[in-house]
Amino acid sequence: MEEKYDDSVLGRARVQDTPELEAYYKELEGLGAGALWTVANDIEPWEPRSSSVPMLWKYENLRELVLKSSELVTPEQAGRRVVYLVNDKRKDVSAAVGWLYTGIQVTRPGESTSAHRHKASALRFIMEGEGGYTVVDGNKIMLEVNDFVITPNSTWHEHGVEEGGKTCIWQDGLDIPLVNALEANDYAVYDGKQPLVAPVNHLPMTYGSSAGIVPADIVWNKPYSPLFKYSWKKVYPALLEAAKVNDGSPFDGILMHYTNPVTGGHVMQTMGASIQLLRAGEHTKAHKHTGSFVYQCAKGHGYSIINGKRFDWKERDIFCVPSWAYHEHVNLSETEDACLFSFNDLPVIQSLGLYQEKEHPDGYQKID
Amino acid sequence: MEEKYDDSVLGRARVQDTPELEAYYKELEGLGAGALWTVANDIEPWEPRSSSVPMLWKYENLRELVLKSSELVTPEQAGRRVVYLVNDKRKDVSAAVGWLYTGIQVTRPGESTSAHRHKASALRFIMEGEGGYTVVDGNKIMLEVNDFVITPNSTWHEHGVEEGGKTCIWQDGLDIPLVNALEANDYAVYDGKQPLVAPVNHLPMTYGSSAGIVPADIVWNKPYSPLFKYSWKKVYPALLEAAKVNDGSPFDGILMHYTNPVTGGHVMQTMGASIQLLRAGEHTKAHKHTGSFVYQCAKGHGYSIINGKRFDWKERDIFCVPSWAYHEHVNLSETEDACLFSFNDLPVIQSLGLYQEKEHPDGYQKID
Amino acid sequence: MEEKYDDSVLGRARVQDTPELEAYYKELEGLGAGALWTVANDIEPWEPRSSSVPMLWKYENLRELVLKSSELVTPEQAGRRVVYLVNDKRKDVSAAVGWLYTGIQVTRPGESTSAHRHKASALRFIMEGEGGYTVVDGNKIMLEVNDFVITPNSTWHEHGVEEGGKTCIWQDGLDIPLVNALEANDYAVYDGKQPLVAPVNHLPMTYGSSAGIVPADIVWNKPYSPLFKYSWKKVYPALLEAAKVNDGSPFDGILMHYTNPVTGGHVMQTMGASIQLLRAGEHTKAHKHTGSFVYQCAKGHGYSIINGKRFDWKERDIFCVPSWAYHEHVNLSETEDACLFSFNDLPVIQSLGLYQEKEHPDGYQKID
Amino acid sequence: MEEKYDDSVLGRARVQDTPELEAYYKELEGLGAGALWTVANDIEPWEPRSSSVPMLWKYENLRELVLKSSELVTPEQAGRRVVYLVNDKRKDVSAAVGWLYTGIQVTRPGESTSAHRHKASALRFIMEGEGGYTVVDGNKIMLEVNDFVITPNSTWHEHGVEEGGKTCIWQDGLDIPLVNALEANDYAVYDGKQPLVAPVNHLPMTYGSSAGIVPADIVWNKPYSPLFKYSWKKVYPALLEAAKVNDGSPFDGILMHYTNPVTGGHVMQTMGASIQLLRAGEHTKAHKHTGSFVYQCAKGHGYSIINGKRFDWKERDIFCVPSWAYHEHVNLSETEDACLFSFNDLPVIQSLGLYQEKEHPDGYQKID
Repeated sequence: MEEKYDDSVLGRARVQDTPELEAYYKELEGLGAGALWTVANDIEPWEPRSSSVPMLWKYENLRELVLKSSELVTPEQAGRRVVYLVNDKRKDVSAAVGWLYTGIQVTRPGESTSAHRHKASALRFIMEGEGGYTVVDGNKIMLEVNDFVITPNSTWHEHGVEEGGKTCIWQDGLDIPLVNALEANDYAVYDGKQPLVAPVNHLPMTYGSSAGIVPADIVWNKPYSPLFKYSWKKVYPALLEAAKVNDGSPFDGILMHYTNPVTGGHVMQTMGASIQLLRAGEHTKAHKHTGSFVYQCAKGHGYSIINGKRFDWKERDIFCVPSWAYHEHVNLSETEDACLFSFNDLPVIQSLGLYQEKEHPDGYQKID
Repeated sequence: MEEKYDDSVLGRARVQDTPELEAYYKELEGLGAGALWTVANDIEPWEPRSSSVPMLWKYENLRELVLKSSELVTPEQAGRRVVYLVNDKRKDVSAAVGWLYTGIQVTRPGESTSAHRHKASALRFIMEGEGGYTVVDGNKIMLEVNDFVITPNSTWHEHGVEEGGKTCIWQDGLDIPLVNALEANDYAVYDGKQPLVAPVNHLPMTYGSSAGIVPADIVWNKPYSPLFKYSWKKVYPALLEAAKVNDGSPFDGILMHYTNPVTGGHVMQTMGASIQLLRAGEHTKAHKHTGSFVYQCAKGHGYSIINGKRFDWKERDIFCVPSWAYHEHVNLSETEDACLFSFNDLPVIQSLGLYQEKEHPDGYQKID
Repeated sequence: MEEKYDDSVLGRARVQDTPELEAYYKELEGLGAGALWTVANDIEPWEPRSSSVPMLWKYENLRELVLKSSELVTPEQAGRRVVYLVNDKRKDVSAAVGWLYTGIQVTRPGESTSAHRHKASALRFIMEGEGGYTVVDGNKIMLEVNDFVITPNSTWHEHGVEEGGKTCIWQDGLDIPLVNALEANDYAVYDGKQPLVAPVNHLPMTYGSSAGIVPADIVWNKPYSPLFKYSWKKVYPALLEAAKVNDGSPFDGILMHYTNPVTGGHVMQTMGASIQLLRAGEHTKAHKHTGSFVYQCAKGHGYSIINGKRFDWKERDIFCVPSWAYHEHVNLSETEDACLFSFNDLPVIQSLGLYQEKEHPDGYQKID
Repeated sequence: MEEKYDDSVLGRARVQDTPELEAYYKELEGLGAGALWTVANDIEPWEPRSSSVPMLWKYENLRELVLKSSELVTPEQAGRRVVYLVNDKRKDVSAAVGWLYTGIQVTRPGESTSAHRHKASALRFIMEGEGGYTVVDGNKIMLEVNDFVITPNSTWHEHGVEEGGKTCIWQDGLDIPLVNALEANDYAVYDGKQPLVAPVNHLPMTYGSSAGIVPADIVWNKPYSPLFKYSWKKVYPALLEAAKVNDGSPFDGILMHYTNPVTGGHVMQTMGASIQLLRAGEHTKAHKHTGSFVYQCAKGHGYSIINGKRFDWKERDIFCVPSWAYHEHVNLSETEDACLFSFNDLPVIQSLGLYQEKEHPDGYQKID
């Protein structure tokens, strides 16, 4: 898939080993040093290089195992009862792709976790159930299927399902691998339950305005979205409305970012999230870009071609697209739209000046 | 209303006239100069000082005259058929209060203005009619009663009412007096009608999301809101929703700013706008602050006390609150909420570091 | 000088008076209203329009009168002993040009003013003397000839000259007329002398680095420059250095803005300042732009042509360029450079989106 | 060194293995999944955890080997003739500490490299020689001992030493390991030599003002410092000046960040740099914080205690402080100051919200 490059040109390391050089390398090694030219071509690749592979996790295979975890362990024992999805090439860092972690969590009616916080940021996308809720820094927020909710870094948070609800399953997304890699993670346990600081759903009801208005008397100076919950009941109609008057992206159909309404930027500093609508029969063109992505199909069915391999998905299936992997999406229905939720590390990639993209030269990929 | 201050203290000018000084002043005057201490106490007041007076314009008095203008002059002759409201103390600058202009414009079915642009910024709030629209830089936007719409500085804009519509009346708000005072206004006439660059309502349908999502593939880097229209159909429910979970401001009830969804800030660089809900029977406390405000009652009836004087308002009445005037609002209904639309020069006052506010020492004003 | 425009075109108000209309206007007037088309062409000019005229104040005429003020009044009586310069067309607002105030202040050895503060911002440019100082929020800063220093809005400030110094004369620049016009000015007197909070010259020595380095352990979050003083001993060599490797602007020679080193922007929110070097024999091209400017010649001699009129200046002369007035500068020396200090309201004009400029169509003006 | 924490509390994973669970884990593994509680305590540490160890590289050991490389390989063969320093625990990513690479490069008079660019950012600190230069995007900049210079990501850059100069040795710092980890690096070779676009030293002479002034006619909108070179001739006097009026930090003495003069922020998006002065006899207190640091002693001699181990340094020695390692610095001279240059990944840590710090509970460390 990668373009062909030639390391025998001026400007690349082209040193042949000699006995004298080998002795020199030995000497350097003894001093905690090395000769750059022995590693330069490797650590300075011509194009971005990912160590992850594309993967798809079928919900029909996982659902039963996820539910079974609720028989095998209690929340008190497990902390959180989660089955996490791990990339074949990222087992060492427990990542689904790149530096992103994802898992599927189950909570039964009446259960709740204890509160904790960490420097890693988290988000969730609701897959099943009723009566689920999260409490973030004392704000209780009710959750329904396909709702997207954030628990930003260093906020106290806990989750649960009301007594009269139905077993809830949701996808967790975290940047634990990234924050560990950056050697900055931490963890703290809250002593007891958080007291609520505002009426239930206070923040989504205050900032989740359908009208471009925000409270005049509240100052929000935290580096994440005060909206917290992005309700599917509002998101899906907004997608349909936008689809009426926009052609969308050739690579992504109608692609909308969840945003922080007081900055217009990403919902958190380290992870972004998007929702996209593929119109009936739509087959997008292929491109690749930096940044790692985890998808969940929220509606419909279709497939994606990632680095030349076809991955078929339907509602609740989860798949990943590694950095710099060519990808294109297909909605297999000729009558219904399909929706893909995704989360990513774009805020990192963009704030560090590392974003770039490239169209596939042929428009579409050949399937290997 | 103003606190009592004493100019006889050290740090204020306290020079007595003498024949020698008078000769000196004469000499300075001949050189285009003066002695600061002769004007210092006047140009350096102890507290902010407004040259505007509070005023209220009753719609029942003005409506007929506004409609009559459509018999007296054509849009072709008049440019725009507008009755403007002028503060008794600001006639020299055609301002309703401070440096803000406001007027009431009428357009009959099938009529439209020619397109023009200017460095002054404009906004409108729809009072009556059906089928009204504005075209801003090639984007046509349909307007309904109580919708709020902006036409930012230097955008080409034109307005009209569709053939099958009903006579439309709306309030215009402009910063013409400010931009003239800052010696920066200009004007240009568009040659013919603007071609549309997107489907009708493209921008409000794209950015007016009810869900905190924005298009991933559109870059908006203009210094004003891409939403353009703030639809009452969405604004009023959002107000009601926020009212359920917020106590609101003691001075303003549930006060929400119209915002730019890609910055969280004011809709334009020189004028902001707000919508506020006074709950049944609510009587807010009095305060004063810098910045000039023009209000229109969008719903209900009540009164405001401004610098000790009572102004009764009902739907469509317009009134103003000058800078640093104490004001408090009362909803006279014990069962229905009341809504006040307002626009202001807060973006100017805030960006220049000139905002300050003060609670009334007694909580409420006495009516003079 | 202004381009010719025609008000008889579609898009401008072209209504002829009739008895019926006159009766209508009368009726509107009784309701605090008017017909927009009677004032529209006047309040919506084709190009920016200034009410100020270009003026030059010769220091040789003013110096003696400034010194004389120190015999006529004491600082205790006068507050500050200042001769202010007033534009022939802006006497009503005590402005030198546009909304900018300027004056010349004299302080004798051993004298000092009491401390005060106001919402208006101030700056000074030192013209003569030794041992002058200012104290801003407890920071004492020593001043020498051609130093530029700021006292931002709402900071406590006082000035004086040390016992062993020489009589100091400096130019004051303030935005008093603007802040009064925006109805936001205030004033307070400090009770006694300010205690010093840091060693003398602490801030300029900390932030006035010659090297692009700033203290790691000081957080500066005020909306103005922490540098406070811009020392001529550093400014002039920097101008010479920049002149070696830059062609400069065709309209201004080597023009450098004094900046806030923690933002790269203007030194204060409402006034900016610049220093410019005209190379030996340089004659710049003419342009006009929005924004008002007050100049002081800091070095050399030459003239400026402003709206077709020639103004000759030498060291310490002060002159003004109104908004949208064509201007060009000439250094009359064939061997020495000339330097012009200036301050302006560009931060206002730019932050409100009102800046525009235009080259003179002929490159240079004809002198009337 | 790390505080003691207890994983047996509620909120941590405390599940005991059973045959049933082991079968369950097996089943999950077959589906590319796992149980979170089996890894949770490991991937969610109580405090930040670094995989690097503190190390010091003595220049007296390395210098000869660095020079020898110039006999063993040519720049044409090697690309760049560099000995890189590698952390004992980061050999897999060629990093000196965390995700930072550092190396020592030698260039003889008359030699120059070919131009290239990459998404990784680079900086250099000059150790020895005369007549060295770098060319960044067509801007040639001359370098002297202790100068600090940047070559930001995706800029074309090449280095060399003038014919009449003396062999130059400098330290390179790059974020190659980070950009590789983020799967975003790339590389391109320039075809031939870059043409110069401005006079030599244009940018440092233009922006390196000693006076807080910046060119009015140059718009700089790139995300890195336009100053490029921070000259020791200006930096050291500025440090001395700041030291006269500042107490400095208890942990770092007089610590100044190199900054971007148009933002006040870090010099580049991914790496920052600082210079610090330890006064004669100074022994700073111990603290730890997130972020990785590489130091070079620019002047004097002393030692640092890092996680309880003493590292003695003198001019040109290089050492590293890993994330969350306690560290304190000592100047061993009782008469002379000592200066430490350092570069770091603070822009990453801070922009992602991951910075935190902690004082040592005892003030100072015990040496192990």
